This record gives sequence, C-alpha cells and structure tokens, in this order.
Amino acid sequence: AGKSQHNEDQACCEVVFVEQRPSPRGSGELDGGRKGFYFHYWALFDGHAGSGAAVMASERLHLHICEQLRELVGILQDPSPPPHGELPNDALPRFHLEKAVSHESLVIGAIENAFKHMDDQIEQERATQHLAGGCCALAAIYLMGKFYVANAGDSRAIIIRNGEIIPMSREFTPETERQRLQFLALLRPELLGKEFTPLEFPRRIQPKELGKKMLYRDQSMNGWAYKKIEEDDLKFPLIFGEGKKARMMATIGVTRGLGDHDLKVFSSNIRIKPFLSCFPEVRVYDLTQYEHCPDDVLVLGTDGLWDVTNDKEVAAVVMEVLTSYEPNDPCRYTMVAQELVLRSRGVLKERGWRLPNDKLGSGDDISVFVIPLGGPGNYT
Amino acid sequence: AGKSQHNEDQACCEVVFVEQRPSPRGSGELDGGRKGFYFHYWALFDGHAGSGAAVMASERLHLHICEQLRELVGILQDPSPPPHGELPNDALPRFHLEKAVSHESLVIGAIENAFKHMDDQIEQERATQHLAGGCCALAAIYLMGKFYVANAGDSRAIIIRNGEIIPMSREFTPETERQRLQFLALLRPELLGKEFTPLEFPRRIQPKELGKKMLYRDQSMNGWAYKKIEEDDLKFPLIFGEGKKARMMATIGVTRGLGDHDLKVFSSNIRIKPFLSCFPEVRVYDLTQYEHCPDDVLVLGTDGLWDVTNDKEVAAVVMEVLTSYEPNDPCRYTMVAQELVLRSRGVLKERGWRLPNDKLGSGDDISVFVIPLGGPGNYT
Repeated sequence: AGKSQHNEDQACCEVVFVEQRPSPRGSGELDGGRKGFYFHYWALFDGHAGSGAAVMASERLHLHICEQLRELVGILQDPSPPPHGELPNDALPRFHLEKAVSHESLVIGAIENAFKHMDDQIEQERATQHLAGGCCALAAIYLMGKFYVANAGDSRAIIIRNGEIIPMSREFTPETERQRLQFLALLRPELLGKEFTPLEFPRRIQPKELGKKMLYRDQSMNGWAYKKIEEDDLKFPLIFGEGKKARMMATIGVTRGLGDHDLKVFSSNIRIKPFLSCFPEVRVYDLTQYEHCPDDVLVLGTDGLWDVTNDKEVAAVVMEVLTSYEPNDPCRYTMVAQELVLRSRGVLKERGWRLPNDKLGSGDDISVFVIPLGGPGNYT
Repeated sequence: AGKSQHNEDQACCEVVFVEQRPSPRGSGELDGGRKGFYFHYWALFDGHAGSGAAVMASERLHLHICEQLRELVGILQDPSPPPHGELPNDALPRFHLEKAVSHESLVIGAIENAFKHMDDQIEQERATQHLAGGCCALAAIYLMGKFYVANAGDSRAIIIRNGEIIPMSREFTPETERQRLQFLALLRPELLGKEFTPLEFPRRIQPKELGKKMLYRDQSMNGWAYKKIEEDDLKFPLIFGEGKKARMMATIGVTRGLGDHDLKVFSSNIRIKPFLSCFPEVRVYDLTQYEHCPDDVLVLGTDGLWDVTNDKEVAAVVMEVLTSYEPNDPCRYTMVAQELVLRSRGVLKERGWRLPNDKLGSGDDISVFVIPLGGPGNYT
C-alpha cells in the first residue's frame, strides 16, 4: 500500500472448538468426554494510527467469541427454546408476556459481547503491550448451518450466489452514523469541548456570515433546512465532509471498531473514543435455506478493496476467475482473492499505481477473504 | 370501533397553494401576481387518550408544511442547485469540501420542521384549547412530480404498482425504536425516575431471582445474553412486551407522533414526552420514473387496518375491487377504501365483530386513503 509505511491490515482464519464449561457439580460428563461444538472463523482487521490494536484483535477476537459461546453449549445443542433464566423451583411455570428468544439471537449476543470484551482487553493492556491505534473488524463465523457476519467499521462483506449479490454488512462512517453521533453530542455537549457544534453544515461558515441564512441539519433530520447563523454555528461541525473524506471531529473517518482509547482531536484534549462504538452489526445467512454450487462465495474485504471497485465488479471477477479453474480445484478461491487484490492495487507506472482505466489504484492496504459456500470446501 | 367510545382517527385532504413570501424590497413581482406552486396533501391522524391533538393536527399540519415551503418557492423553481446560504458579496466563489444538497432534501427538511412546529403549537395551545392526548401522523404530499410520504407513528403506507408492493413507511414502536430509547435512558437516567431500568428482559423478574442468571439486552445489542440479576434489574423495564402489546414505560405503544405533552406514567410524575419523537421519516417516490396505469395506487391506513390484514391482502382487495369497475369510473378508488375498512372491521355476530376467517375484527378505529397514481385522477 502507499498510505502507510507498513501494512496495517491483519487477518485471522481458524477452526475453534467450543468446550462446555465444566459443571460445578461434575455432572453431565457421564460419557467420558466433554460436550462442545466447532465454529469456523475468518476475520479482517484494518488498522489505523498503528497496527497494535489490529494485531492483538487478530490474535484474540476468536478466543473471546469462544469464551462467550462456552456459556451456551448446552442451550444451543438443545432444540427447545432457550430458558430465560434459572427459575426458582417454586416459581409459576408460565409468566405473563414472556418473550420468545431464539438460539440465533443468543449467538448474535455472544458475538456482540465478544467484541466488547476484546475492546476492553485492548484498553487494559495498551500501556503494558504498547498497543497503538485502532482497527475496523469484520468477522464471519460459521456455526451450526449459519454464517454470522459481524462488522464494526468500513470493511464490507457480500455473498455472491448464482450471480446474485447479497450484501452482508453495511459501513459505519461519520455519514452513516451521523444521527447517533449528533444525538450523543446533544445530550452530552461537554464531550465537544467547546470546539465543535453538533449541527451539520454543507460547508464551513465564515465569521462575517453571522446573522445570515445557512443550510443545516440536526440529529432529528434527514433533510436540510435554512437557519440564521448564530455565534455557536461558527464552531467546527462534529461531522464534516463527504464520502471517503467525511470526518468526525476532523479526525476519524470510521465510527465503529476496536481500540483508539487514547485518540484525541489534534492539539487538544478532546477525546474521540466516547463517540466510537465497538459493537458490530451482525447479519445472519442460513446456509441450509438454499442449494449452493461451487461458484457461490462469501467475500470479505477491507476498504482498500471497495474504494476502487464495487459489488458488481467484484462479482464479475469472481465469476471470471472461478470459471477458468476446474470446479474441484481447491486453489480457485485463493486465485480469486489474489486477483481481486492485484486489480485494486493496479500496476506501477511512472505516475504511480494505476488501474486498467488509468485511475489511481487503491493506495490503501487491501485484504480479501473468498469463502466457498458450497462444493468441495463445504462445512457440514 | 370498539376500543374507544368515539372515533379518534382524523383525516385531511387538501390542495394547497404555496405563495412566495413578499420580498422586503418589493422586487420580483413585475408580472403582477406572486410566484408559487401547488401541492396535493392527504393525511391520517390516529388519536389516543382523546381526539384533541388529532383534530388540531388535521386542521393545521398542511398549513405548517405550506409555511415551511414558502421559504423555498424561488429555490425549488430554479433548476440550479440550492444555495448553501446567502454568501457575502466578497466571499470566495468556491469553498473546500462543499456538500451538494438536493431540492428533494430541502422539501424533506421542510416537512420534518413542519411536524416539529405542529407539535410546538399543540404544546402552546393545549391549555387554552383543551387539547387532550396525542396522535400518530401519516401524510402524503405530492409536489413537483414526487410523492413525499411522512410517517410519525404506527400507521402505514404502501404503493401498489403493477401488482408489486412498495413499502412507503415503517412503524415507530417501542420495539422498532428500542435502541434509541435505551440510549436516551442510559444518557439521561433521571428521566426514568428510579422506577424503570433501561435494560430489556424477556419477562418480569421476581425478587427471589436476585443473583441468578437472566437474559437481557441493552442499547448496543441486537442479540440477547445472560447476566447475573442485580437489585437494579428488579425495576420495571423501559421497553416491555411484544408486538401490539409492547409498551414504553408500561404506558404507550407508539413512540413517534404529535401531542402527549402531559402524558405521565400511571400514578407517577414520570413524563413520557422526552422519549417520544415528533419527527417523521420521509420517503420519496418519483412518479416520473415509472409509467403508471389506473390500477396503481398509494394506500394510507391507520393501524386499525394493518392489525388484521397485511400488504398482500390489501393489494389483493385493491385488484379485486378496481377490476370490477370501469377504468375511468372516478368512484372506484373510494370503493376500494370502503371495502378495505369493511373487511377489517368484520361482521357483527353473536360473539362480536368477526372477519371471514372467524377471527375477531380490528376493534380499533380504521381509516384509509386510496390515492390513484395514474389514470384519470393524475396530478400533472
């Protein structure tokens, strides 16, 4: 890449055994071995301001997911609905207004909390381990017939099935999370340190425009309206810029991820972390609901890939490369990933890395997983 | 209806002329008349705890929309992009990082602010006008080739085009807005008055369960996880119940709308209003992007309709009734609306109002607009 001296992307791919926690009374082990299940795991971590957080997350996130799932081994292997809690023995068998909770939503909760524990661990160990920076995290977990795709940041996952594109994540940026960030700024104005205004404006306002009209929008609005410019509106907007150039507090272009506990606004004491969320959005894809052929894949990519290409172009490359190999050649998925990276990077010419259309290549770190959903590499 | 003694639904249908505000310098009127444009307007207001707010909103919301749009007459009639503000004469012609704002997003902003002003007016006049209760508001505005559908509450709008269903709104309830409400409760715990916990549990917890495990989720989670029950968890959950029975603070089943300024939790001083939003979500449908036939319609309905029927069944009734009339019969859309209301109410039998499948009829007030998108009643 060109943006940073070293590659700040990290990746991890594991098969993890989730072993049931030993029962305090020693029961449930009559069959000799302990109960448990496996999950398959792939994850990409796009680091910024150093690779420390990304490296640690790539080494540990799957262990945190495993730890959260250990609590659930017995429950997930039991087809009856999960119990709400440990009921007292003399409790009524039925409560009014009980809410059904699915096995799937327990797995989602486990993954969400694993991200939180990962973020807490980075916070605790950042001083002793010299962990710098933060990272986006995108993880795919295959468990009991379903893919759980968890995304916190601006990486992106899509499924390509029979040529059709199914988005498996959305990006979390100052633009997509504007209303959450503005709402927080409104309720906790002290977090803005008198430097920022929670309102969004389409451009910087000049002091001599005081009293004139200007377009704005606040945490409740999706549209824009005019307002009279007041003294407070001359502060820098919490969210500013558009597309890849959008920044929160003029500092960061991604609003979810792990780490960044020490990140501050340039030459100030204003902390960024209170505005960042470490919680992923988890989407579920039930592999048993569809027939899959060897050309159906799940693609995970960091923003280095998606900045210069789109879903359709990626799907076209996947098709092109896969059909040039035998369907049972295990290397064909690796070749797709390699081709996707090479095409997004471009070719080194006199005026830098160039794409086939002569536009500039990604310039950012590029990482890709291509995961087969059917065919020889399937998980049943 | 059966739920309340009187019908608390209100409706309004108007053609409104938006006249440009007279210029302070008297310019721009050389052609004798003032500039302006028309918009078509249909709206449903589903009142609760009295019809006062619904009645006032049905009489005034379109006037507030008109008032907001008056500021924009010149801008909307000018095909060039809206100006960001009144630039000082000596300003640089171009700013860095200017954000493009569309005409469409100015109309959305105008509608959003009109809802806010309507809510403020209800607040100001509720004492002198004896306005009781609150209401959901669903409005469709046809303006310059586009439909703007604004929804605050649990009414619902769909377009049926060539048999295909296009949702034009989503419902705002304690379940769909759970994370916004929990986030507010977390940041402003004083609003819970020591009576409620921001956490959601799938059922009430008994005091003797203290220290045991229980499923929960907080403002950051979509999934569920187990936690050890603490003293604070014995409070009543902010969000409780499922589906039509879901309530915020055990009081209200809808989380956006107008009015409700005096609403409190039963036999307490805890106010509900800080959690309610009066801002609508506005969706846009560009009528010029498609060819429409006389059977294509926009259907607006209060929850009395949607509680006992779904999008597909409504589309089937629309088709069935429309095809039984001549395509140029102007009564056919009215007949569809009547049929939708009658079928949702059911037929009075010994055991109450019954639907054809012998289930209970809606029991709630039912209001429906059926608006043709093409054919003899079109708006060009």
